[in-house]
Amino acid sequence: MSVTTPRGFRASGVVAGLKSSGRPDVALVVNDGPDHHAAAVFTSNRVEAAPVTWSRTVVADGRVDAVVLNSGGANACTGAPGFQDTHRTAEHVGSLLDVAPGDVVVCSTGLIGERLPMDRLLDGIDAATDALAADGGPVAAEAIMTTDTVAKTAHADRDGWSVGGMAKGAGMLAPALATMLVVVTTDAVVDPAVLDPALREATRTTFDRVDSDGCMSTNDTVVLLASGASGVEVGEAELTEAVAAVCADLARQLVADAEGAHHDIAVEVRTAASEDDALEVARAVARNTLFKCAVFGNDPNWGRVLAAVGTTTAAFDPAALDVSMNAVQVCRAGGVGEDRSLVDLSGREVRVVVDLHAGDATATIWTNDLTHDYVHENSAYST
Amino acid sequence: MSVTTPRGFRASGVVAGLKSSGRPDVALVVNDGPDHHAAAVFTSNRVEAAPVTWSRTVVADGRVDAVVLNSGGANACTGAPGFQDTHRTAEHVGSLLDVAPGDVVVCSTGLIGERLPMDRLLDGIDAATDALAADGGPVAAEAIMTTDTVAKTAHADRDGWSVGGMAKGAGMLAPALATMLVVVTTDAVVDPAVLDPALREATRTTFDRVDSDGCMSTNDTVVLLASGASGVEVGEAELTEAVAAVCADLARQLVADAEGAHHDIAVEVRTAASEDDALEVARAVARNTLFKCAVFGNDPNWGRVLAAVGTTTAAFDPAALDVSMNAVQVCRAGGVGEDRSLVDLSGREVRVVVDLHAGDATATIWTNDLTHDYVHENSAYST
Repeated sequence: MSVTTPRGFRASGVVAGLKSSGRPDVALVVNDGPDHHAAAVFTSNRVEAAPVTWSRTVVADGRVDAVVLNSGGANACTGAPGFQDTHRTAEHVGSLLDVAPGDVVVCSTGLIGERLPMDRLLDGIDAATDALAADGGPVAAEAIMTTDTVAKTAHADRDGWSVGGMAKGAGMLAPALATMLVVVTTDAVVDPAVLDPALREATRTTFDRVDSDGCMSTNDTVVLLASGASGVEVGEAELTEAVAAVCADLARQLVADAEGAHHDIAVEVRTAASEDDALEVARAVARNTLFKCAVFGNDPNWGRVLAAVGTTTAAFDPAALDVSMNAVQVCRAGGVGEDRSLVDLSGREVRVVVDLHAGDATATIWTNDLTHDYVHENSAYST
Repeated sequence: MSVTTPRGFRASGVVAGLKSSGRPDVALVVNDGPDHHAAAVFTSNRVEAAPVTWSRTVVADGRVDAVVLNSGGANACTGAPGFQDTHRTAEHVGSLLDVAPGDVVVCSTGLIGERLPMDRLLDGIDAATDALAADGGPVAAEAIMTTDTVAKTAHADRDGWSVGGMAKGAGMLAPALATMLVVVTTDAVVDPAVLDPALREATRTTFDRVDSDGCMSTNDTVVLLASGASGVEVGEAELTEAVAAVCADLARQLVADAEGAHHDIAVEVRTAASEDDALEVARAVARNTLFKCAVFGNDPNWGRVLAAVGTTTAAFDPAALDVSMNAVQVCRAGGVGEDRSLVDLSGREVRVVVDLHAGDATATIWTNDLTHDYVHENSAYST
């Protein structure tokens, strides 16, 4: 139930020695066809890692034969030498698989500002090529983990075809994109022109709505590969639905495994004048560090929710705002509602609903609480 | 050396019982004239507390006779009854001092979403009126503290006149404004028309450039009172300089006493195409939780600085960015610079300099690190 669940794909994960932990750190996903259609979305961070710059070009013509991924180093802020490292990585994969280097997507994740140990990486790619297997998806998912505590895979079975996926990402989860690295595969036979819109629609409402800590990565990549190996022709709507289902599953797993988090928080904004307004308000609440600290302390401090809403440009009347936390309406018409002591925040999942009473649009952002463990993990980062 | 350093002012601070700690919690500052000129700036949060709504109106005509301030409750998100409480507070002060209620500024700070215990507050105002004294500034500064660990006062002596000030604020420090409550006094004889521009210019480059935790308060108020009691006529430029000096002093004290902070961080952006660009970049870095956690851990993780810079719309070439931390140039031309191990972050003050190489504008934002103590204080907030 991974990137190798759909037919036409092989994958592998090996230990190349990039991580000091000695865990798997190089993954390879190969599309054996017959189709080699692909689309991808990347971080919107203007400081993008070398592999992102490379992979944008690779994907531009809609064909990808393989994706090589490493943890243990982001290859970001490494200048021209870093880009040459990425280029060399793609050329090495291309020569081993007998495909064009320009059809090899490269993804890296780990510490920013350090060169990759290329000898170890290239040796690892040799081993990963030897290890390619039709059931290699789960070990590939393991090899892209950084501070993740569990490997993340998902799939959606449809009538004679399927979509599979894997993701890594535990910190620096924010728009747009919300995760570091994701590979999604399908064996559907699709018009190559629909892959890009299908992937964009799927990520828009899933990964783009995870905002764990407001920090945007330099390496975010989501790539979708279609092999056509099922022989089943699938239209854009069907494809989008299944890809979105896999992305939603993976996005929820990212939130559940966010660095140091004790709570997963859904901030749902309703009755907004527009979806953009709903998103702006939900994101403002999701990024408010005081609110996130309060949730960590199981404190239903709804005043901090209102203070965050008030920083936005969305249409609303402050005297009309309603807020509920885990179904207790603690704020009514901008003022005091039900007793805050009725709110139970002891569970992992917290649901905050903000009603703007300005229209009928809605949006939900998933975030996490701000905890001692988050501070600890990110002040002692070394992987 | 406080709000009562300039002539023409009396002040007091008393225990009214609003704080469970039993510390002083009601302050009064009275301008005995001969002038009663005033200007103020307030939070730009659209969810503003009742006292902010009230005080905007009070200041509109440029005359203020007294400022009454309470800690132990913000009177925010309290609806129409909360506004009536503020109104009643001003009327009570007005009747005791024999001034118009419409010339009494009201400031409140503390927990959002709870009504003030009005009986205790009004009794406290009686006591504060009895206690008014020409040397009452320091105790007034003490009475507005919430999670502040020290009272904050400042003054600037000029030729025959002076400016004094007090501030409270330890959390929820962000633009615009960066602090909760500030009163600045002067005995200069000034054209009332210059007070507002002088205060706005002074706050623009001081309080507005403190961004401790990115959270904007519902109650921020900075009020400037001019008594004319020195008899010395002062022009706009002189006044602005002295008010800015006091505001800068107070702003630096706010950063130094920010909740749970272990480091004070100056993020200076240079060679920007515009001051707006410099500010946008400096604020993006100052709000990056991963960078702030790294500083807490004395880790010069400059990649997180670049990742934050990359989220902005400022003019720059990612391959031209330079970053130094405490004078060590860890990033050169977007890539690896000097060895990060040369950076010593063990001191309280940290200076990060980002060069955009896109022009000649500059700006500095002061922020703090993100620590276990910040999380703890804000997950257990109850004052």
